[in-house]
Amino acid sequence: MPSTTRDALSFPSAQSAQISPYLPISDSQSQPLPSKFHVTLTFATSLDSSLSLSPGVQTALSGPESKSMTHYLRSCHDAILIGVGTALADNPSLNCRIEGVGGYGGEGLERQPRPVILDPKGRWEFSEESKVMRLTKEGKGKAPFVVSNKEMEGQRRAMLECLGGKIIVLPSKPGAGEDSSASSSSTRLKWAEIFKILEGEGIQSVMVEGGGAVINDLLRPENFGLVDTVIITIAPTWLGKGGVLVCPDPRVEGEVRVPVGRLKGVHWLPLGEDVVLCGRPKET
Amino acid sequence: MPSTTRDALSFPSAQSAQISPYLPISDSQSQPLPSKFHVTLTFATSLDSSLSLSPGVQTALSGPESKSMTHYLRSCHDAILIGVGTALADNPSLNCRIEGVGGYGGEGLERQPRPVILDPKGRWEFSEESKVMRLTKEGKGKAPFVVSNKEMEGQRRAMLECLGGKIIVLPSKPGAGEDSSASSSSTRLKWAEIFKILEGEGIQSVMVEGGGAVINDLLRPENFGLVDTVIITIAPTWLGKGGVLVCPDPRVEGEVRVPVGRLKGVHWLPLGEDVVLCGRPKET
Repeated sequence: MPSTTRDALSFPSAQSAQISPYLPISDSQSQPLPSKFHVTLTFATSLDSSLSLSPGVQTALSGPESKSMTHYLRSCHDAILIGVGTALADNPSLNCRIEGVGGYGGEGLERQPRPVILDPKGRWEFSEESKVMRLTKEGKGKAPFVVSNKEMEGQRRAMLECLGGKIIVLPSKPGAGEDSSASSSSTRLKWAEIFKILEGEGIQSVMVEGGGAVINDLLRPENFGLVDTVIITIAPTWLGKGGVLVCPDPRVEGEVRVPVGRLKGVHWLPLGEDVVLCGRPKET
Repeated sequence: MPSTTRDALSFPSAQSAQISPYLPISDSQSQPLPSKFHVTLTFATSLDSSLSLSPGVQTALSGPESKSMTHYLRSCHDAILIGVGTALADNPSLNCRIEGVGGYGGEGLERQPRPVILDPKGRWEFSEESKVMRLTKEGKGKAPFVVSNKEMEGQRRAMLECLGGKIIVLPSKPGAGEDSSASSSSTRLKWAEIFKILEGEGIQSVMVEGGGAVINDLLRPENFGLVDTVIITIAPTWLGKGGVLVCPDPRVEGEVRVPVGRLKGVHWLPLGEDVVLCGRPKET
């Protein structure tokens, strides 16, 4: 077995035990795989519900314990999914650094999640120097799947496929019954279709990590039922107006505003200076 | 000793023990009064940092345990302070219903906090039917102090004073050095002065409960140092865009946005489905 690398992280079992009821599999590999596709929505915010100080700015919000938790969560999912905005802003690693997974003490790519980049308009201009590609070459993570409405330019596609990744072009287009004049109609994410496609790729669990547009879209009442569990880290800080907010569009029923969504079966886990909220979407 | 009334609340000592380090006095009356004026800022929000669905709409956010906690907190402060917007929107009771305080099993007005309404422009048109006045007449709370830049109309003032309340007119006006053209300058709250005046009235501790304008103003870096402790209840729900947000103005240092404020010495207390965050402003 390869020795543990210097930058491996660990997450205490006393804490993982409190989170594992919300996960598709526990970190024990003896657990059976789930029979149903599992979606975990997870992110970290300030007290004023910001993901970052400004669009495109990466903001360190949560403490080291929360970082270890994120990597633990990644080790429990087949895939991690982000929107292209986050890929462009953060140049993220999208691998798992928990001690014992592939590249961090484990063999091969064992328990390394598949990065999935949602890039409807084909905006992600990655190169061999993008972090996620470099880690793939170093055997510390998997190459990404890019989900898009557009085909990918040939040379970039070849590079991606050579590393073991792929482009997945969504079959659906705005139908005749849809309002094609709305700028959002062609890019409105069809989550059921996206998850179905991932399932077809052999992925049984996905952890959706952000950014703001993806999270707010999944919190919409018509999408929230597709989410199985939600895990949110809250840091005791205020970022102030102008940040990238987790705040879904308002919900109106019978001309009266009502809450957009709520969690049930909640568990709050203090973690360093932060708190972690685990829960499941409540039917409303 | 009068018997406990039907609507009295209790807050378990296992939980109050975790909050009391953040309070000016514990619920044990044997504790000495603090030597320094104490300000507690407290409120309840959704996950997307909303106090309510829309301005002027009262939204039930937190559960029954959090309600009991709020009344427990009130029993530990000499005064509770709200802005006039909340007084107009909610017609609040502003008394304390914890079992054993005056009117709820206790003698006289023992441990009933003094309601303080911040009403710079004299907008609060209360009557004898306002809840806070009715409770005063029933011996279940104290009459409010109204802090304003304007004098109060004679008849209303007489009614208020007859019940034991008073109007306190702030001495300061926008000075020559201030920008009197800015619409906010004449109404910008001078917190140090307000707290000094309350101290002069024999009040040694105040719990600031809202609403949004008051909270966001106290979170401004120039005011946050006046706050001793912060106690926030967070409910596992999203209200969506258009709510009354706790979200202070952005803070810029050297042309770079930085977090507006942070808490130190934090303690997270799960309470029913909600979590309660206790902390102290961190110097930044």
